[in-house]
Amino acid sequence: MERLLFDADHHAFRESVGQFISRHVVSEYDRWEAEGLVDRELWRLAGESGYLGMSVDAGYGGGGEPDFRYNAVLVEEFARAGFASLSSGFGLHNDVVTPYLTELSAEEQRRRWLPGFCSGEIVTAIAMTEPGAGSDLKAVRTTAVRDGDCYVVNGTKTFITNGIHADLVIVVARTDPSAGARGLSLLVVERGTPGFRRGRKLAKAGMHAQDTAELIFENVRVPAANLLGAENAGFGYLMRNLPQERLSIAVVAVAAARGAFDSTVRYCHEREAFGQKIGSFQHSRFKLAEMATEIELAQVYVDRAILDLNAGTLSAVDAAKAKWWTTELMTRTADMCLQLHGGYGYMDEYPISRVWRDARVHTIFGGTTEIMKEIIGRDLGF
Amino acid sequence: MERLLFDADHHAFRESVGQFISRHVVSEYDRWEAEGLVDRELWRLAGESGYLGMSVDAGYGGGGEPDFRYNAVLVEEFARAGFASLSSGFGLHNDVVTPYLTELSAEEQRRRWLPGFCSGEIVTAIAMTEPGAGSDLKAVRTTAVRDGDCYVVNGTKTFITNGIHADLVIVVARTDPSAGARGLSLLVVERGTPGFRRGRKLAKAGMHAQDTAELIFENVRVPAANLLGAENAGFGYLMRNLPQERLSIAVVAVAAARGAFDSTVRYCHEREAFGQKIGSFQHSRFKLAEMATEIELAQVYVDRAILDLNAGTLSAVDAAKAKWWTTELMTRTADMCLQLHGGYGYMDEYPISRVWRDARVHTIFGGTTEIMKEIIGRDLGF
Amino acid sequence: MERLLFDADHHAFRESVGQFISRHVVSEYDRWEAEGLVDRELWRLAGESGYLGMSVDAGYGGGGEPDFRYNAVLVEEFARAGFASLSSGFGLHNDVVTPYLTELSAEEQRRRWLPGFCSGEIVTAIAMTEPGAGSDLKAVRTTAVRDGDCYVVNGTKTFITNGIHADLVIVVARTDPSAGARGLSLLVVERGTPGFRRGRKLAKAGMHAQDTAELIFENVRVPAANLLGAENAGFGYLMRNLPQERLSIAVVAVAAARGAFDSTVRYCHEREAFGQKIGSFQHSRFKLAEMATEIELAQVYVDRAILDLNAGTLSAVDAAKAKWWTTELMTRTADMCLQLHGGYGYMDEYPISRVWRDARVHTIFGGTTEIMKEIIGRDLGF
Amino acid sequence: MERLLFDADHHAFRESVGQFISRHVVSEYDRWEAEGLVDRELWRLAGESGYLGMSVDAGYGGGGEPDFRYNAVLVEEFARAGFASLSSGFGLHNDVVTPYLTELSAEEQRRRWLPGFCSGEIVTAIAMTEPGAGSDLKAVRTTAVRDGDCYVVNGTKTFITNGIHADLVIVVARTDPSAGARGLSLLVVERGTPGFRRGRKLAKAGMHAQDTAELIFENVRVPAANLLGAENAGFGYLMRNLPQERLSIAVVAVAAARGAFDSTVRYCHEREAFGQKIGSFQHSRFKLAEMATEIELAQVYVDRAILDLNAGTLSAVDAAKAKWWTTELMTRTADMCLQLHGGYGYMDEYPISRVWRDARVHTIFGGTTEIMKEIIGRDLGF
Repeated sequence: MERLLFDADHHAFRESVGQFISRHVVSEYDRWEAEGLVDRELWRLAGESGYLGMSVDAGYGGGGEPDFRYNAVLVEEFARAGFASLSSGFGLHNDVVTPYLTELSAEEQRRRWLPGFCSGEIVTAIAMTEPGAGSDLKAVRTTAVRDGDCYVVNGTKTFITNGIHADLVIVVARTDPSAGARGLSLLVVERGTPGFRRGRKLAKAGMHAQDTAELIFENVRVPAANLLGAENAGFGYLMRNLPQERLSIAVVAVAAARGAFDSTVRYCHEREAFGQKIGSFQHSRFKLAEMATEIELAQVYVDRAILDLNAGTLSAVDAAKAKWWTTELMTRTADMCLQLHGGYGYMDEYPISRVWRDARVHTIFGGTTEIMKEIIGRDLGF
Repeated sequence: MERLLFDADHHAFRESVGQFISRHVVSEYDRWEAEGLVDRELWRLAGESGYLGMSVDAGYGGGGEPDFRYNAVLVEEFARAGFASLSSGFGLHNDVVTPYLTELSAEEQRRRWLPGFCSGEIVTAIAMTEPGAGSDLKAVRTTAVRDGDCYVVNGTKTFITNGIHADLVIVVARTDPSAGARGLSLLVVERGTPGFRRGRKLAKAGMHAQDTAELIFENVRVPAANLLGAENAGFGYLMRNLPQERLSIAVVAVAAARGAFDSTVRYCHEREAFGQKIGSFQHSRFKLAEMATEIELAQVYVDRAILDLNAGTLSAVDAAKAKWWTTELMTRTADMCLQLHGGYGYMDEYPISRVWRDARVHTIFGGTTEIMKEIIGRDLGF
Repeated sequence: MERLLFDADHHAFRESVGQFISRHVVSEYDRWEAEGLVDRELWRLAGESGYLGMSVDAGYGGGGEPDFRYNAVLVEEFARAGFASLSSGFGLHNDVVTPYLTELSAEEQRRRWLPGFCSGEIVTAIAMTEPGAGSDLKAVRTTAVRDGDCYVVNGTKTFITNGIHADLVIVVARTDPSAGARGLSLLVVERGTPGFRRGRKLAKAGMHAQDTAELIFENVRVPAANLLGAENAGFGYLMRNLPQERLSIAVVAVAAARGAFDSTVRYCHEREAFGQKIGSFQHSRFKLAEMATEIELAQVYVDRAILDLNAGTLSAVDAAKAKWWTTELMTRTADMCLQLHGGYGYMDEYPISRVWRDARVHTIFGGTTEIMKEIIGRDLGF
Repeated sequence: MERLLFDADHHAFRESVGQFISRHVVSEYDRWEAEGLVDRELWRLAGESGYLGMSVDAGYGGGGEPDFRYNAVLVEEFARAGFASLSSGFGLHNDVVTPYLTELSAEEQRRRWLPGFCSGEIVTAIAMTEPGAGSDLKAVRTTAVRDGDCYVVNGTKTFITNGIHADLVIVVARTDPSAGARGLSLLVVERGTPGFRRGRKLAKAGMHAQDTAELIFENVRVPAANLLGAENAGFGYLMRNLPQERLSIAVVAVAAARGAFDSTVRYCHEREAFGQKIGSFQHSRFKLAEMATEIELAQVYVDRAILDLNAGTLSAVDAAKAKWWTTELMTRTADMCLQLHGGYGYMDEYPISRVWRDARVHTIFGGTTEIMKEIIGRDLGF
């Protein structure tokens, strides 16, 4: 089934991203995996190519193009090619952070941050999760206490995507200790601010080129001018932006599943066992048919959700549906593709080994499958 | 996610079908289930209401409306309300048989058959499957031997939807014994032709109001004027029409799943256990969330497929994807909904008991899940 | 893997049961299904053959054999042969009711009831579930109020196995309105007691020869001499006997799964499609291999649990594990076997159609799968 | 359910292995993972502790104890503790290689090899798989051509467990080019033989401390005195020993699943979210209950299979059932346990991250799940 989502401009953009990947990513990725993060230079190159801040106004150096389909194409191409550390890193910057910096910001803030955001000089992150607290924003313990024209921030954040490279971190901090979810604010903490340091780059089951890290804040004096939006309104801002984040992950998930599937179809054509192509065994054929079907269903759904996002009608519930189903599909697909490779599937020589490891976090980050089902179930009145 | 498929005319049509069901079906259905078939009068009423032959030219008494969305609305309403014997019976007549009678027929044939087809005086069936031969058209053993201006038909067909009520049966018969799939023709056999008789009305696990039957042909002299299309071209005609048949079943499957789901959500709101609504147990809530998600994915996919069918671009592979995935969803959903009802789910007092039994055949008829996966797998080159 | 559980005496007993089924059941079962209950005469014949009360002392007319393996053989043979209405009816009488009548009873009660229990003149039932209350014993609303040397019983029970045939019903009634689960007592209500009547024989998705019914108690004066055990101690008695009931269902489930599997293997050898045995398609072969494996695993586990029951060491948790896993296996197996039969699987002509419908209630009655998981989860400390 | 398999001696042996792990493994394992293989010294320590060649006759330095339960205890302890690279390495040496060296060998060979085998000076491997050939022994292309009192061996083997440490490799080579599976022989190739070299240590998705490697044989002159058993009889020898290998993997799989489960239960007790223990969410509780059930079923089955192996009655089919089901359980369990850890599950800080990666190969090596199902399906006559 042909995707009806894109026009010629999107196709051209996709081609450009494909060339970028061929030129700048393919030959370096194994090294980045071994080193645990990409070269900082990659961000600058991405900025130069117009891949950062595509929806940011041209006046700040952005692409001036609010159409989320471009965002989708960008992360799709990285994900399809098996570079999930990058779809995650760029996706976080473009699809998650952008609206905070463009919609909640003052003009002065936009002028300070957006040009670097778009050029790749300022890599961004958002720091919600805390050790031991998981998805529960009500339990945030990082504090920001007003002191003169600063907030004094104390706390620890973990599982922070782009954590090592990040120059600008949106920190979710508690500004009203007695108000639960209604006492959170968003503060931008910049690299070099005294008391702000990186913890460990976290060793993970996969996503080895993604510099997920702990961030530690000890009496960090953050200028009040770095507050995003209103004080104590952070929870609402987060809720408003979660659908776009989750849709971005869903877009990645479908593209990654398709990439794994396509390479496995090729493998099943090339490899023989017991005198026949392994794809011609009925069991393999059925598994491939199942994946082909489910990937296509997921694609049609996600494409519709992208249109809804563009139209401003994507609900939190629909984003949750897209997020959990596509990421479960991604892990299931990666797992089956690995199995179809037999022993080779477990060897790093074949990309499916990495794809399988990378996939696994996608049902967890951005809200676990379980949290998504809670959201949907609550919407049914339970 | 709102369905974008329909406009006001479709909504009005849906409402009319809903009223028809309230007026003519709800109070009679249990009796039809017990009797093993609907009243013949129902077909006449459906014809009167404009529900038969909607895509047939007005000149023959049809609706003159080629838009398949009306066909979809019709079967959806029966399926959603839990009357799968009717979505199956009307779906067969409208969605499966119509193109044979309108596209392969001569003007003389159209004039003979279509007015009754549209008024409900002529109920139709199509007879492919033979005892022991299942989905394998190459193995068809029913023969049609030319003798003067007749074909002499001998053979037995089984699992024939509308088999008892059918006045006009399109019979797949072998006209060239040595040509395998390329030796099949389509012959219209009419009620009352000597040698044509009904076998048993088949006792089934469900679909009790559907008059599925065996049909027996013993030296039936069928006028050559009842040949549809060209001799020996039957296989190609069948292949051409299967996508529409499978999409029709997929439409039914999603609507039936949604009907089961909606009534189960209501049940989970009303019923309490251990002092709380059963829907508020996390396990129930998650199961409901999973069904809500998968039904919506299926709906978006099927709606896209309907548009493709209207545009003439629905491929056999995409129809196969829609067919197996939605019918597996239908049975899975019915099964889970039954379980959520606890002991009541197994009692005929609640509709889910019948819905569960009716659902089960949908992964089998119109091409089993396994056949669908073969079609998709073959398309991948295996 | 050979079952190591049985010795020659059990094998001989199994053979006798097999002959009983051939002689008294096979030719009548379809009629019983249509009539909604077995002939009362069958109970007398079963008593005569020594199949009722096998563990009851010989002095009361029983078999005097406490070895549960005989109980297992009995229900296995009915279940394996596809007569789940009987494995359920006899299993309820022998495996569930017996311990109440032998362990909680006074000598006078034993003399009154056990001879008829063993001869088949007294068919028994146990009435726990109430409309709308499901598995929650704390919510029992049927009351038994002491009045002189009687209890006056009021209430309604539902889903009662053997409900129409039952001459003796153990009723769970509330004797202390303020004590929750600790205010329940077990009272024997006998056929003919004024105010005790049968409600509807319940129409069900399957188990059509099982006379599941509602029972209604309106000011029924039950002699205090019919109290089993101590007043208000009912909950403890029920808890004590549930493991044996659940193991009995697990025994049935594995035997029924094996019966369905064996007949499907035969079918897959006999039936051909596309020129080969349908069992020789890799997909079918794999499905059969999966079922063969899981049935054997289940059997080994259940056999171990039977030995534990005999030894008095079967825990409620292990019985819960056996119950949910084997009954889910039973329904999964029946479903897959039906699918492997293609269209014939849905026709009552093949036994799998009935087996599939009968299977479905087994994950519900005797404690749903969900309740079993609660029991196991609680044992883990949650 | 208590395991009934072991007596006091086995328990004592288990305790000794546990102490060995505490003393020699726990603190070093991360380093071995980073280095891609264990210290060679570990093999010597294991030999010293009596863990190598337990079933080898005491006269050759072995344990003289043919009871496979000791083998089971050894690998169980490593697997349960999360050290699958070691359960695999030692399992290969003890459970797979031993019978070749004790049952097919000449007295002279036993004297040459078994003392080192038992002391840990001779680490062993078996080389079946070839690049691109997978599980298909008929396709073996490595040749051994007789030349005087030597065989000249040429070929490449891959996925060889213990491949780097191995001093003695049993090579499956073709001695009759025209005889398919009936033209294979087993030749022992020793470290240092000219032309025998290691290829790459294979980078894998997991099992990082396991030195899986390619082995390359270029005109290697292997003394005819190193032939095991008869020429051209290799296929039969391999078939004879596969059940023990597969049971060994099944033993590992259940123990690893239990280890993952136990640590996850602890995690679910310690960690809170939204104000409650995460194990107390019904979804978590149900998932834990499912795992508890399935691990116990698997254990009871595997324990029975161990007794059958000891008794000489374990069939290839039963070993295949045990192998595929337990390893699928292992991967499913590891996957679910990781998810229950949330974000922490993906971090190497928690052992489940490694356990999940290590688990994945177990449905592949020693015969894939698909091959196991073929074996079982064939036994059903298909």
